[in-house]
Amino acid sequence: MGEVGIGLVGYGMMGKAHSYGYTVAPVMRALPHKPRLRAISGRDAGKVSRAADAYGFEEWTTDWRELVGRPDVDIVDICTPPGTHAEIAQAAAAAGKAVICEKPLALTYAQAAAARDAASKAGVLNAVGFNYRRLPAVSLMKRMVDEGAVGSLRLVRATWLSDEFVDPATPFDWRFDHAMGGTTIADLGSHLIDMATWMAGPIAEVAGQSETFVRRRSGRDVTVDDASAALVRFDSGARGVFEMARTAVRRPCDFTIEINGDKGTLVFDYARLNELRYGEGEDRAELYGMRRIRAEHETHPYAKSWWSVGQGVGYGSSFVNQLADLIERWPDGPWEPDFAEGAAVQAVCEAIERAAAEHRWVSVHEVAGSL
Amino acid sequence: MGEVGIGLVGYGMMGKAHSYGYTVAPVMRALPHKPRLRAISGRDAGKVSRAADAYGFEEWTTDWRELVGRPDVDIVDICTPPGTHAEIAQAAAAAGKAVICEKPLALTYAQAAAARDAASKAGVLNAVGFNYRRLPAVSLMKRMVDEGAVGSLRLVRATWLSDEFVDPATPFDWRFDHAMGGTTIADLGSHLIDMATWMAGPIAEVAGQSETFVRRRSGRDVTVDDASAALVRFDSGARGVFEMARTAVRRPCDFTIEINGDKGTLVFDYARLNELRYGEGEDRAELYGMRRIRAEHETHPYAKSWWSVGQGVGYGSSFVNQLADLIERWPDGPWEPDFAEGAAVQAVCEAIERAAAEHRWVSVHEVAGSL
Amino acid sequence: MGEVGIGLVGYGMMGKAHSYGYTVAPVMRALPHKPRLRAISGRDAGKVSRAADAYGFEEWTTDWRELVGRPDVDIVDICTPPGTHAEIAQAAAAAGKAVICEKPLALTYAQAAAARDAASKAGVLNAVGFNYRRLPAVSLMKRMVDEGAVGSLRLVRATWLSDEFVDPATPFDWRFDHAMGGTTIADLGSHLIDMATWMAGPIAEVAGQSETFVRRRSGRDVTVDDASAALVRFDSGARGVFEMARTAVRRPCDFTIEINGDKGTLVFDYARLNELRYGEGEDRAELYGMRRIRAEHETHPYAKSWWSVGQGVGYGSSFVNQLADLIERWPDGPWEPDFAEGAAVQAVCEAIERAAAEHRWVSVHEVAGSL
Amino acid sequence: MGEVGIGLVGYGMMGKAHSYGYTVAPVMRALPHKPRLRAISGRDAGKVSRAADAYGFEEWTTDWRELVGRPDVDIVDICTPPGTHAEIAQAAAAAGKAVICEKPLALTYAQAAAARDAASKAGVLNAVGFNYRRLPAVSLMKRMVDEGAVGSLRLVRATWLSDEFVDPATPFDWRFDHAMGGTTIADLGSHLIDMATWMAGPIAEVAGQSETFVRRRSGRDVTVDDASAALVRFDSGARGVFEMARTAVRRPCDFTIEINGDKGTLVFDYARLNELRYGEGEDRAELYGMRRIRAEHETHPYAKSWWSVGQGVGYGSSFVNQLADLIERWPDGPWEPDFAEGAAVQAVCEAIERAAAEHRWVSVHEVAGSL
Repeated sequence: MGEVGIGLVGYGMMGKAHSYGYTVAPVMRALPHKPRLRAISGRDAGKVSRAADAYGFEEWTTDWRELVGRPDVDIVDICTPPGTHAEIAQAAAAAGKAVICEKPLALTYAQAAAARDAASKAGVLNAVGFNYRRLPAVSLMKRMVDEGAVGSLRLVRATWLSDEFVDPATPFDWRFDHAMGGTTIADLGSHLIDMATWMAGPIAEVAGQSETFVRRRSGRDVTVDDASAALVRFDSGARGVFEMARTAVRRPCDFTIEINGDKGTLVFDYARLNELRYGEGEDRAELYGMRRIRAEHETHPYAKSWWSVGQGVGYGSSFVNQLADLIERWPDGPWEPDFAEGAAVQAVCEAIERAAAEHRWVSVHEVAGSL
Repeated sequence: MGEVGIGLVGYGMMGKAHSYGYTVAPVMRALPHKPRLRAISGRDAGKVSRAADAYGFEEWTTDWRELVGRPDVDIVDICTPPGTHAEIAQAAAAAGKAVICEKPLALTYAQAAAARDAASKAGVLNAVGFNYRRLPAVSLMKRMVDEGAVGSLRLVRATWLSDEFVDPATPFDWRFDHAMGGTTIADLGSHLIDMATWMAGPIAEVAGQSETFVRRRSGRDVTVDDASAALVRFDSGARGVFEMARTAVRRPCDFTIEINGDKGTLVFDYARLNELRYGEGEDRAELYGMRRIRAEHETHPYAKSWWSVGQGVGYGSSFVNQLADLIERWPDGPWEPDFAEGAAVQAVCEAIERAAAEHRWVSVHEVAGSL
Repeated sequence: MGEVGIGLVGYGMMGKAHSYGYTVAPVMRALPHKPRLRAISGRDAGKVSRAADAYGFEEWTTDWRELVGRPDVDIVDICTPPGTHAEIAQAAAAAGKAVICEKPLALTYAQAAAARDAASKAGVLNAVGFNYRRLPAVSLMKRMVDEGAVGSLRLVRATWLSDEFVDPATPFDWRFDHAMGGTTIADLGSHLIDMATWMAGPIAEVAGQSETFVRRRSGRDVTVDDASAALVRFDSGARGVFEMARTAVRRPCDFTIEINGDKGTLVFDYARLNELRYGEGEDRAELYGMRRIRAEHETHPYAKSWWSVGQGVGYGSSFVNQLADLIERWPDGPWEPDFAEGAAVQAVCEAIERAAAEHRWVSVHEVAGSL
Repeated sequence: MGEVGIGLVGYGMMGKAHSYGYTVAPVMRALPHKPRLRAISGRDAGKVSRAADAYGFEEWTTDWRELVGRPDVDIVDICTPPGTHAEIAQAAAAAGKAVICEKPLALTYAQAAAARDAASKAGVLNAVGFNYRRLPAVSLMKRMVDEGAVGSLRLVRATWLSDEFVDPATPFDWRFDHAMGGTTIADLGSHLIDMATWMAGPIAEVAGQSETFVRRRSGRDVTVDDASAALVRFDSGARGVFEMARTAVRRPCDFTIEINGDKGTLVFDYARLNELRYGEGEDRAELYGMRRIRAEHETHPYAKSWWSVGQGVGYGSSFVNQLADLIERWPDGPWEPDFAEGAAVQAVCEAIERAAAEHRWVSVHEVAGSL
């Protein structure tokens, strides 16, 4: 078994989650290559050196460009704040590295498209970290949709409710700065849009609204929204409603996604992440209601890598599954969601931002058409 | 104890529910007047005579105008299809009767405003049958909002998901005819709008989308939507998202309403109608999460009229509470929601319809301003 | 349509619930006789006269024997404290009246057997008020068990958890007096035993434990248990576990019953009284989990008398269904559960009491065999 | 940072879970020693060599005695079937190794006591793998009980329901052989007993029942029970009910534990493993009900090692927390649950087995008193 060298940019919570993923992946699944944690980079030498030690990286640096340039790094994994993603991704692709970039791929569609084009030109494996796709129950939901469990899709609704920004005393940091953290639409909504379009196809047009309830923090202007919502029309004619908010008291990161087709209903609620509810139109009438599927059965996606049904996996499993898949696909792919999909999600985010700002319906083509 | 004479127009499911309400009200609560079921009207003599017998009405007629004209009828209760509401309501008011009219008050704002004005001119007690306001848990939610349990309101979301229209083989009837049944927005959404504006105040403007997935039934064009959604801005600056659909497989009438304020979150889910979830921002951090309030405690609205906590009430309780309140307030009121509120709800429904049709944000004033 | 005269003994919560039932029954279902509320009795003249007025009884008396003797009373309905049940039931049967008696039928098996024998000798319709059998979801559970939905029964578990006796400051009243209120086993457990034996057949033997945590109230000795539990073996070889407690903080009357057979699992949870969960062994493996049946579908027991699926019934529905059934069956029956079944339940209660007191397994025959 | 050498005996599901734990522990928490996976043993050379590779062990052997004798192994971790535990544990202790042994520690109290005494005599750190104690929500439950959240304990109920043995076609293997796998009481019940006694103190006496519904498999007699239940009295006077079954269709491993004290109720349901429900007697009456605590708040046990609140951990977290704690405590301890606690649990298991077999209450002293 060969090795694949990993270089991780960023040591925060996402860096920890990815490190967990690389470490666990070979224990849970037989892989063609063994991930070797070559180097980690970050701006603060003390913190990055401690992270290297904790996460098991062999070396560390405060210069991400150095990391990207190392010959022993095969995959560059980008876990920095959103505003820095596109530049690092382009540099890594230019260096001929496979790249996995945390979501959102960028803060504007133009940046995202540039990253996409750079990866395409370099011909490298490229991935966006929409980890929830590889949460077992969400993967099962996708599989069931593809197999026709809900029939022809009609309605999609998805929400992400968090209390992250409720407290007006939370001091200003990069999350409140549009230029570094991006909008709530991009931060939370990008996951919803990714999952929704994965299952229901491209979005044609959107209406939107955004609000910032706490407008100043630490004496500075907050330049991102606390909460936004969108109405969407899919290319297929299905309709959707999305809501993403960081001002929902005592909701930590409660995301839900529901799809109604002409034959069935599927409901995922992240607070019950090992379950998937299924209303099957053709089920016997006297059993009217929904099934609560325990999404860990050995017939379910990823289940054989994990525990017995009923034991339950957590958030971390999404990273393990994602990175095990990535190592399996390295170096030739194919991979989804790639930068092209990440850019497409970003186009929807930007369309919602524009629709909210300009108080009108916006075609996604209007954003993405020119690039 | 005196009596109050009831005349009921319509013998369908709503007629049954109201009859249940009048019958049960005096058993559950000491009332100043005893409701006496004087007469019921309906177009089909056989059906209305059987309904009179079952529901306990003393007499029946096939002519609602006769019923409205009876001197022994004090309250006219309108339970017919929506397209007939406004005309009957106006006639009843003109006859000097107190009127309670099932929702929606009308199918257009103009009709609703005419009913409102007729009732106002006649000076009669007038009520719209938004029964869910008087479901104990919803009443408790309103009380808690008023008492500051969630602080300053920021976000409101409400959904009503039903499978009533899923099956393309369901034959055409008045529900599919815009002129008689009105839109899904008016049928289901009016409840959501009523509850939301009751708790969060008036709505200023809306965006909307509507779709009819099954466009023909029994060889006729369906002229109402299967599903719609709206983004709304309240006068207060709060934001809302509403969704109403009759094409959600294996969801019978699952309505939810959630409010997020700067101090708390309240969540009602009709499938768990004796509960109210409450996330209190100031609760001890180590108890992070939400309470599941059993909304039947003796300190809660309406609870003393019903069973011990934990036993549970059903749908019927909303009618009992509504009609017991109505009899208590008769003849002088005050009452809420009255026709003015019913018309205001109708203005929002119509604004959403217009926003969806015209693909733009619509001010509620644009609909209601001229009347 | 003829009438059937009702005489109600007792005006407390159960009297209210039964009055509600008689009043609502003819509104919800076409009945062969109209219940006419002839008379109500109670010891306190002021209270009983007010109850007569509220509940719609034509007359009242402070002497239950007078009520039992009235020629216009066809059914005597006993809603007094348990310690008085058997005597009244025997007198009513002797007077040739149909009798419905609230549970438990008596406080000892000997009393219960005497009531059973008196009713049998008199040849009158006799019924025990195990109302939960006629809650729609519980009726559905029984029907599914009978239809083989769980296959051959193996395990039954049932709990009833309440906080009624938690507070040591609750003053002494008849509920704490064994001679009047009976044990927690008889009060709460009798419901569980009735439902379990209805579905799973007779119980052969039991082990038990009982505890009184608050032993004195208002300066008097409490002579009933706060909490008890039992292990049981059914005649069929199935095994069961029952627990009944009135000392479970913030549990109001949370009862559950679960049956596991070799083909399936059924779970009822009273806090979700319109639902029934069903794990079907032969369901497709990839849908592993349980269905949450909305037990109000038109194919379900009692559903056609009530509201549309999803609207929800409450506690009161069990009384309406019970008393509508009773009036349909009057005067010739058959009826279940009758006094013989009530006595059989009492034998199990007494066996558990004896097993707990004597610290050994007790055969139900040991209690019931001699009578 | 030094290293601690790990030797793992057994490569099955438990071996995988422990390997996962050792691998993840240093990523999630700063540890005083780095676990180094020195050797793994198992009877099948092909399987154990593949496991060594997958789990990251440096060497493998088919002889557990060789593993136990290696000087570079500091901790012997026993993940074999129950019937082999005690012998290996004694040998490891005799070799001066710290030992962690999967539960149950043994199949008889005598074996368990021997292991306990051997560890005590050797003076080595000794641990039993009751991993659920270190699931965050269960740890939080224990902490809340200790802090008085429920007051004085009155009732404990715990169930473990699985469908592992439902299918009569499941062929005979060691799990059906009493001499190798032990009873369902020992396999599932030992967890319940451990958690219950951890929180509520020692158990004084028990009654029990056991049943084997499928008595032959693959032509061999099944010598273990499919399902058992017990009534228990704690030394403190609290009462408990336990049920453990492997014949509950479509229940995978649904364990629950509830404690009712005079001040509150705590409920844990493994199917919702990131939650803990809390009914607080002194909470405001108008909020009557229970809180659903999201047991991942930064103030909660183990939370700081994991993800943000709401993200959710899984089964694996219990092993990570357990083994991280073990490495922190190595080599001097203290540790709980140790072999003495494991033996005490085994005494209760054996008392229940005896009570069921002999159809009488059995004192735990009767089992444990002589050793």
